[in-house]
Amino acid sequence: MLTGHEWIIEAEGCESAALSNLATLRALCNEVISDLELRTIGHPHWHQFPAPSGVTGMYLLAESHLTCHTFPEFGLATFNLYCCRPHADWPWQERLTERLGAARVVVRCVPRGGRMVDDDCERLPAASGRGPA
Amino acid sequence: MLTGHEWIIEAEGCESAALSNLATLRALCNEVISDLELRTIGHPHWHQFPAPSGVTGMYLLAESHLTCHTFPEFGLATFNLYCCRPHADWPWQERLTERLGAARVVVRCVPRGGRMVDDDCERLPAASGRGPA
Repeated sequence: MLTGHEWIIEAEGCESAALSNLATLRALCNEVISDLELRTIGHPHWHQFPAPSGVTGMYLLAESHLTCHTFPEFGLATFNLYCCRPHADWPWQERLTERLGAARVVVRCVPRGGRMVDDDCERLPAASGRGPA
Repeated sequence: MLTGHEWIIEAEGCESAALSNLATLRALCNEVISDLELRTIGHPHWHQFPAPSGVTGMYLLAESHLTCHTFPEFGLATFNLYCCRPHADWPWQERLTERLGAARVVVRCVPRGGRMVDDDCERLPAASGRGPA
């Protein structure tokens, strides 16, 4: 049973200032939500860590969740979008380059649920005893 | 730059009643947090969807995040533990079998950050244009 997909995004070489700016990151995540017509349940949960650490944001969605973590000290932002819909395309590469100055954006997609292979996504191999039991 | 690992867990064949029981799921997630000595920031965010849908829980952590989604109608629970620590082993298989009656538990682990291969985890291939751009 496939219950959705998860997009796992890493943006490297970002501008440090953008990664420490909660307003910038909130606007970015709100744009994802709005563009994909996702429905937020309750209030998003944001936290700014003391410098040089970054920001975390979490959205509980009717469709599952969106998370954002930034690491200004490494120029890195990571996102997860878990969405109970067959498709939830968003121009991560283009937008993260524009908004955060990302030099490189890697987008991965994994199916969630019991069916581990899906035509639309790459396969994430099982941990085969190398992850936690 | 590797900023942590994400454990992606799917538990299939679970008991429907357990997957609808917010108290059971909260206790389970609190056990993960406690056993791994993770630090929750603010209050966890839980939501019970109308039957036959399940429950969502999200924890913003000093170490990143823990999420839980259940689908009682399919006997399925999915978890994400994103942890900025080299190791965060937890007996997912054993505990999800005990607590939720899971018939099958699949644990995947992916490195997060710029370095996409790690000795401790399986590699998640890039989306190669098949995910969103």
